[in-house]
Amino acid sequence: MSILVVGSVALDSVETPFGKVRDVLGGSAVYFSTSASYFTDVNMVAVVGNDFPQEHIDFLKGKNIDIKGLQREKGDTFRWEGRYGFELNEAHTLDTQLNVFESFTPEIPQEYKDCEYVFLANIDPELQLDVLKQVKNPRLVACDTMNYWIEKKPKELQRTIESVDILIINEAETREFACESNLVKAARRILSFGPRALIIKRGEYGALLFTDSLTFFAPAYPLEDIFDPTGAGDSFAGGFIGYLAGTLRVDENCFPQAVIFGSVMASFNVEKFSLERMRDLAYAEIEDRYRDFKNLTYFEDI
Amino acid sequence: MSILVVGSVALDSVETPFGKVRDVLGGSAVYFSTSASYFTDVNMVAVVGNDFPQEHIDFLKGKNIDIKGLQREKGDTFRWEGRYGFELNEAHTLDTQLNVFESFTPEIPQEYKDCEYVFLANIDPELQLDVLKQVKNPRLVACDTMNYWIEKKPKELQRTIESVDILIINEAETREFACESNLVKAARRILSFGPRALIIKRGEYGALLFTDSLTFFAPAYPLEDIFDPTGAGDSFAGGFIGYLAGTLRVDENCFPQAVIFGSVMASFNVEKFSLERMRDLAYAEIEDRYRDFKNLTYFEDI
Repeated sequence: MSILVVGSVALDSVETPFGKVRDVLGGSAVYFSTSASYFTDVNMVAVVGNDFPQEHIDFLKGKNIDIKGLQREKGDTFRWEGRYGFELNEAHTLDTQLNVFESFTPEIPQEYKDCEYVFLANIDPELQLDVLKQVKNPRLVACDTMNYWIEKKPKELQRTIESVDILIINEAETREFACESNLVKAARRILSFGPRALIIKRGEYGALLFTDSLTFFAPAYPLEDIFDPTGAGDSFAGGFIGYLAGTLRVDENCFPQAVIFGSVMASFNVEKFSLERMRDLAYAEIEDRYRDFKNLTYFEDI
Repeated sequence: MSILVVGSVALDSVETPFGKVRDVLGGSAVYFSTSASYFTDVNMVAVVGNDFPQEHIDFLKGKNIDIKGLQREKGDTFRWEGRYGFELNEAHTLDTQLNVFESFTPEIPQEYKDCEYVFLANIDPELQLDVLKQVKNPRLVACDTMNYWIEKKPKELQRTIESVDILIINEAETREFACESNLVKAARRILSFGPRALIIKRGEYGALLFTDSLTFFAPAYPLEDIFDPTGAGDSFAGGFIGYLAGTLRVDENCFPQAVIFGSVMASFNVEKFSLERMRDLAYAEIEDRYRDFKNLTYFEDI
């Protein structure tokens, strides 16, 4: 079953203790789509400028990502510049040039409107809600957000959250959005806002899944070389929703497996800069790493 | 099989956002012994002053902890005063009065010398090594340490580490001791120093176990109310070694289960101040929580 994703396409400049790249392919919709493309068909809605290189278009097409919804506007593509220190858990933004992304108004092509799986990447919550008005009757909607929207548009965000099935955010955002320092209480409060699941991304500490009846704790894959954490969260979301859409499932019982597939994809993504590692993964590698996660968490029953 | 533990007995004054206690029972040997007492017999070597209340002696005896090795010296008992903020992950030490602990010289009673399981809690690495010279031929020795010893006595600590089977430290200590920011590489380096296992305690993020052939990731139990993290690490060690000693096992294959029992005991400990929660647990509660950990990490095979 195909997925609709609405988010950003960017040209990123990233510096980590292990290297530096300039104007490489990035953006939430790109990381999400590439990751999800290993599991199912993806339809992307985003915007780029005149300067967006054809090679990236070719790359996306090569991944069977449908880009009918990729709008091309006059002006430059969204650019983000960031740096990571040795902890690698937090990006320090050096520069953001929204360019054509500033006036992005998602228009969902007719062919995408009956997509049953929808991912609203981190954009203005009003736009997220607008997307939901354009789609017909999705079986599963997940969304991301960020501290900026929690602070600037809390009411609009609240309305979006009420309309989605799954919220996927990080630990600090969870505490901030719920105004609660205890993570379990914060999760309960956010679930009371409407979504039936909350996934808390914790970087190198893994991820937590909360529903009303289930708590699930996924590790992060222990990597000796983490080159670039950019896009890890969207790669996670791509693996998570990709697995659900690929298996046509929406029930909570399979959310833990989906979280592991998300963790698998995030772990691959951070091994190299930009999309380099996810560019040509073999599905067997994904399955092998899934099994590694099984071993990593195995202990005997009593 | 009984365990020998050498460490501190203290009177702690602790403040957290949820309350405040003064001169309550604490110390690494006490947390460790109480936790391990649910699994096997424990022999404690430590020191207290004249002022140490009889009720605490009675408490330890009531837990079947052998305190023949608890030396009573002229002077006051070791006192520690600390405060935790809302993150609860790190203690801010307000005051330390070593008192009789300053000149503590562990003397291992004859009856303890053939203990097959030994835990060297966080004390001067020279004393830890001295304890190992006094015991006969233990099957399994684990030890803890802290940043203070890593910085002040690195060579002595190195010699101790060479002589133990398992090192149990926290994440920052792992990075500092190995001089390496990547945790997986840091773990490999520490294993190359001698021990056959390293357990990294990560507070609310759980624990990681590394051996040459195994990596295991344990979650922390998601608690809605964490009152006082004091003693969580020693309670963890008590559950870990307690389980191994109680089942007479020393092989790596059962370390993951032991890590979970450690995590179970740590999770109980932080639910109340001092030893209040571990004071009278039922073993069935421990088993129930172990099963909760199983559910918390369960996902389907592929």
